[in-house]
Amino acid sequence: MSKPLGFPALARFAAATAGRNTTKAAYAAIATGVILMVILTVEPAYDAAHHWVDVGLWACLAFFVFEWVIRLRRAFLTQRGWSYALSGRGLVDAAAAASVPSALILGANSKTAWLLAVLWLLKVVPGMRGLRQLRRVMVLESGPLLSVLVIFLMVLLLASVAVYYLERDAQPVAFGSVPAALWWAVATLTTTGYGDVVPITPLGRLVAAFVMICGLGVFGLWTGILATAFAAETRRDNFLKTWESVTKVPFFAALGPAAIADVTHMLRTMDLPARTTIIRKGQAGDCMYFIADGEVEVDLPGKKVRLGEGAFFGEMALLGNNLRSANITTTGVSKLLVLDLVDFRMLMARHPDLAETIDLEARRRAQENN
Amino acid sequence: MSKPLGFPALARFAAATAGRNTTKAAYAAIATGVILMVILTVEPAYDAAHHWVDVGLWACLAFFVFEWVIRLRRAFLTQRGWSYALSGRGLVDAAAAASVPSALILGANSKTAWLLAVLWLLKVVPGMRGLRQLRRVMVLESGPLLSVLVIFLMVLLLASVAVYYLERDAQPVAFGSVPAALWWAVATLTTTGYGDVVPITPLGRLVAAFVMICGLGVFGLWTGILATAFAAETRRDNFLKTWESVTKVPFFAALGPAAIADVTHMLRTMDLPARTTIIRKGQAGDCMYFIADGEVEVDLPGKKVRLGEGAFFGEMALLGNNLRSANITTTGVSKLLVLDLVDFRMLMARHPDLAETIDLEARRRAQENN
Amino acid sequence: MSKPLGFPALARFAAATAGRNTTKAAYAAIATGVILMVILTVEPAYDAAHHWVDVGLWACLAFFVFEWVIRLRRAFLTQRGWSYALSGRGLVDAAAAASVPSALILGANSKTAWLLAVLWLLKVVPGMRGLRQLRRVMVLESGPLLSVLVIFLMVLLLASVAVYYLERDAQPVAFGSVPAALWWAVATLTTTGYGDVVPITPLGRLVAAFVMICGLGVFGLWTGILATAFAAETRRDNFLKTWESVTKVPFFAALGPAAIADVTHMLRTMDLPARTTIIRKGQAGDCMYFIADGEVEVDLPGKKVRLGEGAFFGEMALLGNNLRSANITTTGVSKLLVLDLVDFRMLMARHPDLAETIDLEARRRAQENN
Amino acid sequence: MSKPLGFPALARFAAATAGRNTTKAAYAAIATGVILMVILTVEPAYDAAHHWVDVGLWACLAFFVFEWVIRLRRAFLTQRGWSYALSGRGLVDAAAAASVPSALILGANSKTAWLLAVLWLLKVVPGMRGLRQLRRVMVLESGPLLSVLVIFLMVLLLASVAVYYLERDAQPVAFGSVPAALWWAVATLTTTGYGDVVPITPLGRLVAAFVMICGLGVFGLWTGILATAFAAETRRDNFLKTWESVTKVPFFAALGPAAIADVTHMLRTMDLPARTTIIRKGQAGDCMYFIADGEVEVDLPGKKVRLGEGAFFGEMALLGNNLRSANITTTGVSKLLVLDLVDFRMLMARHPDLAETIDLEARRRAQENN
Repeated sequence: MSKPLGFPALARFAAATAGRNTTKAAYAAIATGVILMVILTVEPAYDAAHHWVDVGLWACLAFFVFEWVIRLRRAFLTQRGWSYALSGRGLVDAAAAASVPSALILGANSKTAWLLAVLWLLKVVPGMRGLRQLRRVMVLESGPLLSVLVIFLMVLLLASVAVYYLERDAQPVAFGSVPAALWWAVATLTTTGYGDVVPITPLGRLVAAFVMICGLGVFGLWTGILATAFAAETRRDNFLKTWESVTKVPFFAALGPAAIADVTHMLRTMDLPARTTIIRKGQAGDCMYFIADGEVEVDLPGKKVRLGEGAFFGEMALLGNNLRSANITTTGVSKLLVLDLVDFRMLMARHPDLAETIDLEARRRAQENN
Repeated sequence: MSKPLGFPALARFAAATAGRNTTKAAYAAIATGVILMVILTVEPAYDAAHHWVDVGLWACLAFFVFEWVIRLRRAFLTQRGWSYALSGRGLVDAAAAASVPSALILGANSKTAWLLAVLWLLKVVPGMRGLRQLRRVMVLESGPLLSVLVIFLMVLLLASVAVYYLERDAQPVAFGSVPAALWWAVATLTTTGYGDVVPITPLGRLVAAFVMICGLGVFGLWTGILATAFAAETRRDNFLKTWESVTKVPFFAALGPAAIADVTHMLRTMDLPARTTIIRKGQAGDCMYFIADGEVEVDLPGKKVRLGEGAFFGEMALLGNNLRSANITTTGVSKLLVLDLVDFRMLMARHPDLAETIDLEARRRAQENN
Repeated sequence: MSKPLGFPALARFAAATAGRNTTKAAYAAIATGVILMVILTVEPAYDAAHHWVDVGLWACLAFFVFEWVIRLRRAFLTQRGWSYALSGRGLVDAAAAASVPSALILGANSKTAWLLAVLWLLKVVPGMRGLRQLRRVMVLESGPLLSVLVIFLMVLLLASVAVYYLERDAQPVAFGSVPAALWWAVATLTTTGYGDVVPITPLGRLVAAFVMICGLGVFGLWTGILATAFAAETRRDNFLKTWESVTKVPFFAALGPAAIADVTHMLRTMDLPARTTIIRKGQAGDCMYFIADGEVEVDLPGKKVRLGEGAFFGEMALLGNNLRSANITTTGVSKLLVLDLVDFRMLMARHPDLAETIDLEARRRAQENN
Repeated sequence: MSKPLGFPALARFAAATAGRNTTKAAYAAIATGVILMVILTVEPAYDAAHHWVDVGLWACLAFFVFEWVIRLRRAFLTQRGWSYALSGRGLVDAAAAASVPSALILGANSKTAWLLAVLWLLKVVPGMRGLRQLRRVMVLESGPLLSVLVIFLMVLLLASVAVYYLERDAQPVAFGSVPAALWWAVATLTTTGYGDVVPITPLGRLVAAFVMICGLGVFGLWTGILATAFAAETRRDNFLKTWESVTKVPFFAALGPAAIADVTHMLRTMDLPARTTIIRKGQAGDCMYFIADGEVEVDLPGKKVRLGEGAFFGEMALLGNNLRSANITTTGVSKLLVLDLVDFRMLMARHPDLAETIDLEARRRAQENN
């Protein structure tokens, strides 16, 4: 079905990206494709540029078909064919590649068939870290969330029947059946309030007021559950990310496992690209850094010093004066552990030996630079 | 009043379920009944299938009447008749069974009488665990929630009177009385905003803007109170559920009561049906499991090992490499205790003896499997 | 101005209540007065019953005037005249008593003057515990709340000007000036969305979409700040209320101050009226009680035992079987300290001596009752 | 471009304020300027007072131009010219000074050009403490917030395409293209619900109901993330502010660093202007104060005692009777550390030596005053 436009270029792209999650090229194709699909539905815009839009859409489709085929082939070569094909990611790839052609084959109008290009958006899902976190929250809190949903549905149905009974004579069109009243109820309970259907009898309005206040309550519960769960999940995620890095920093290696767990809760991981300035001379400083991976360059007057894995820097602003005394820049992709002033003090208080190590090093550096 | 359709079948159903909370049959009857009631109010749908709808509704009603009678009989036989009849659940059963017939006897229009079938939904309430939790939150936080409600009502009345005064000359129909202004105020304060009644004078709009911002504030307070309370309640509930299971696992029995309380906060209970895959080979693992109840089957290359109550598994992915090394499936209904990687490390740090036990067992297993 | 209707009765009322916060009579007068004021504005209802409404309103006004005069007199007799007259409560009393008469004297239409009766609602404020808590939250979090308000206002103004510029030609009436656009912006940013004024140009709609999403953000920040602050305040309030009671229970007296502070965080105060059933035989129990004030009656088979201040009960359901073994009722107004199962276990783990005391007492009781 | 009106006066203002963040004069100019700009767009108001409005706007503009020039000059004199000019604050100053003149030069209509005066509002940003805190929250939580935004956009696009497909035949004008459907979707997903475009087919309404419920979910997630992050940030900010002050109070100097960190979490900083009454005689007291900076005057019967840096007061209300025994007022600008009753008890329990010091001092003071 797919007309291969610019085949070799696409092949190279697709081949290069078969193994990775979602590449920059794929993101570009998704964005382009969806925007073109939106333009397709705007009569005057499509009339003005229908050649370009068509070419673009077919190119995106070809890209996704190609990507799918390449990935299927690689999966079957490594004996994991069906496990890929039936995994969430495989199904999303299949849907992105096959939905539009299938619709065209099944005889759908061309403009209608291309609407399915919106499914390309789903290809973003497997690459997103936050969505995985979200799914965990949903699974862990499914019990309370379901309870709130049941309350939501019960209020919805009770309110619809009540308002249907109270309003059907006054507004036979808008409240002529329970499904019609349900439409009103859902717009009210979510506090959306379109205003296309509104009760007009005093009792109907009383029920409506009650439904709105219930809406606030349902909202509050929902938010409360999600907020609590998300907070816990974020903390857990940060701990997992940081733990590995902490154990690689020799400075912390002397600590016992309980202290390491303690320290891990205080640190925050920061991933930085190459040639990023971390500290700017003269700025106020309120944190220090440990290098878990990579290297940084300290721009001292007259010389440049490089610090590698396991070193720390930025401690001087926490110990004495508040201002940073040099520019510090990453030389390559680096992973740093950030220790906030608050936690720095806490840590120094609980582990006097660490405090001494940092103090000695800071004094040595100060001496060296003067 | 109830026409017994398919009496013996229903009798068997009802008898079987008299003692339990809400059975699958009852859930089906509730869903069917409510859907049919909704269809009843849709003119064309009802005209097309009124025989089926009538039969279905009477069948559901018969089921609920039967259930109520059976439960009443059992309750009176066990000397707890009145305590059941007047309990929340007994009243709900009574309402479900008697409301529609009563309405018909009192001469209500048939279509109107059947609207009361919406009360059948209430039968879901006693069986819901989350709703009990919710009621506890409401009771414990009744003080602050009431305060917010009073603030809500005060803003409502003050705003209504103000807007009534400002708008009554400009819009004598929409703002002709304080109750009419109250309707506007409640739709505005809940941020529903139907738009059927809107102030048009500058001062009226100023008051309206103030009411909307108050609405955000009320919303925020409400959410804040519910979120805080729900978080505490969830933690408490989880502790209660987990505590019993923890004490049954011999691995933790050696710990003192303070440590057990500590461990309980780290674990999460998970109830699983039979033949569920818990761990899939090759996946990344970030938790280990203790069997509180039931049995699991480990699918090792060449043999199948069964682990029973008190055993643990999944610890290898936490100790060394990140990937699960075997499929593990429940053999029957099982209750597992899940220990997250984060808490695993915390636990190992605080209780070195437990760490050693797990380490030894993991090494023994690794040796055995190679 | 006030026509004394049933003077002596009111005098007795007012005199009795001069010292207290807000009496039941005052609450009744407030509710009656405000409802009558609302009825006054509904043409047909007022026409039908204007004599009753007038008499009721004047009676309520007389009550409030009387209350104010009595309180002023008492305050001046005890040398605290001005401090009462100018305190929040004194001003509210003055406003409630003087606003309607002043309006009438100043020549306002009778119906308009009575609208000021809505100020009577303010008399509820000084008696509300929750509102004081709320004020503390507002004061402590004034910084962040103000920041959010400034963001809110900045988004409001920037959006209004942008939409005014974009829409003024397309909709010269609705968006004819920045104040008109501000009305739209406030209804949008609070997600109220009346729909009376809606942008129709593509760029205007883009700005509107951005404003709506900002609305969610502002909402989220606001809720977050209030939720956090309210949670802290609730904890603090509970601690203050509970602390006094804990020190009065001899059971806890042996603990050091640090442990008492610890215990205080675990307990919850519960104020109960006389003859309230606290524990019902046969129910599942998940907490135990300490009597801080008052007395309870245990309804054992064949005898009734009374427990006074400092005693505890309900511990058996926490130690062994889960079901309560007797009805327990308060004899008079009582203050109990509730210890949840979760915290009970924590407490027993941390303070083995307390655990022993409870255990001994429970065994003694079990022996005695068998 | 700027007509210098009242040049010397402005010069003095601007010169005086070149160094500071935002002065009172600048705030006044911003407020005046924006209000005048709003008035400019209201036809009748502008017609009535166009001379005054014009003069005011030009004066404000002159002020901002002057301020910018002065600041640039000072910056270049101190070798930091470009770093100021290109900093956030420099750019805001430039925009405020240059946008209106540029628009006028580029030939824009005078009324349209002055709309850019709304940019003056941005000058408020650099001076706001809360906004910096907010930016930190945004940066730290950018991951989860971005995830929610992506979910938001995906629901938006999927819903738009679905509703476009379902409604385009029924409502060719309102749902004639995907962008038109997007407008509906964004108003629905944010629960704004204008009601100008509403689905009318049953399936379209089903999708709409689903979108509304998703709206609640997105809202809940957003709020949850922001609430959690804001709470953490507030705690951190308070710690940083309080730490410096704590170390200056000799009373705490004897404590080890761990205890100081502990104490810092319990205290709250309070900045007070001169001659503010902190404690009023006869009030109920629930906190004590430490003087970190400044001086207070205790108004004892017959004499006035002054307490300076490092002293504490208000402890008597926490130790014995609940009522404050004297008025206490600041003599100059002061910084106090507030210790709540809850934390006071906690602190006394953990540090018995501090408890003794306070107790001795309280007894000494009581003796002295009687």
